[in-house]
Amino acid sequence: MNLDFGKLGGLVPAVIQDSTTGRILMVGFMNEESFIKTVETGFATFYSRSRNKLWMKGETSGHRLAVRDISTDCDQDSLLLRVEPLGPGVCHEGYQSCFYRTLENGEWVISENRTYDPDLTYGSQT
Amino acid sequence: MNLDFGKLGGLVPAVIQDSTTGRILMVGFMNEESFIKTVETGFATFYSRSRNKLWMKGETSGHRLAVRDISTDCDQDSLLLRVEPLGPGVCHEGYQSCFYRTLENGEWVISENRTYDPDLTYGSQT
Repeated sequence: MNLDFGKLGGLVPAVIQDSTTGRILMVGFMNEESFIKTVETGFATFYSRSRNKLWMKGETSGHRLAVRDISTDCDQDSLLLRVEPLGPGVCHEGYQSCFYRTLENGEWVISENRTYDPDLTYGSQT
Repeated sequence: MNLDFGKLGGLVPAVIQDSTTGRILMVGFMNEESFIKTVETGFATFYSRSRNKLWMKGETSGHRLAVRDISTDCDQDSLLLRVEPLGPGVCHEGYQSCFYRTLENGEWVISENRTYDPDLTYGSQT
C-alpha cells in the first residue's frame, strides 16, 4: 500500500467521489495513519491540518463516508475514494458537496441549495 | 476569484473530472498564476512541483483539457474542474485516467488497459 507522502510533508490529497452519482463531494488530506485507519475501518478518515489530528468524517455529524473502493494515481501521491455518503450532505456548511460554488464571469457563485441545516447538526460553534 | 493558496505554500489541489463520464482523470496543483492562465485560456494549466514551472496539460502530447466549468470548495482551498479531455488519455503512462490502480487486499492492482502508447506520444524519455 505504498504511497508517496513526501511531497506534501506527510500528506496526500484524497478526492471523495459519490460512488452512485459520480459527484465530487470533498477533498481532504490523509497522512499514512489516517489512510491505514480508512482502509481498516472502511470509513474515510482524514488528517486535519488546522487541528493537527486524525478526523473521521462524520464523527460529530454522523455523516460518515462508507468507502466502496480506493484508487491511487500514477505517481502514488493522490488518492481517489469512491464512497457511499451517509446523511444528507458532506459539507459542514449544509450542502451536499463542499463544491457548491462555481466560477461565473470571474466570481464564485453559490450554484445550489443547502440539503440540511448545519446549526441543527453541529450546534452553534463556540 | 479569491482562493486560499496559503495552506500549501502557494498551491491548491485541482481535481480534474471528465464532464461527460464523471470519471476523475487526474489531480494536479495550481498556483495563482496557473489558475488565472487556466481561466483565461480555457485549458487546464498546472504548476509542476518537480519542474517548478507552469505546465499546460497537453503541451507535449496534445492531450489538452478543455475546461467546461470550475468549482471551489467551502474553504476555497481546492478546485474542481470539469473538462472535455482532448485525446485518448490523460495519464503520461498511457491510461485514460491517472487513477488506474485500485486497492485490492492491501495491494495496488492495475485495473484497466492502456488507451494509447506513451512511447509513441512522448518519445523515449532522455
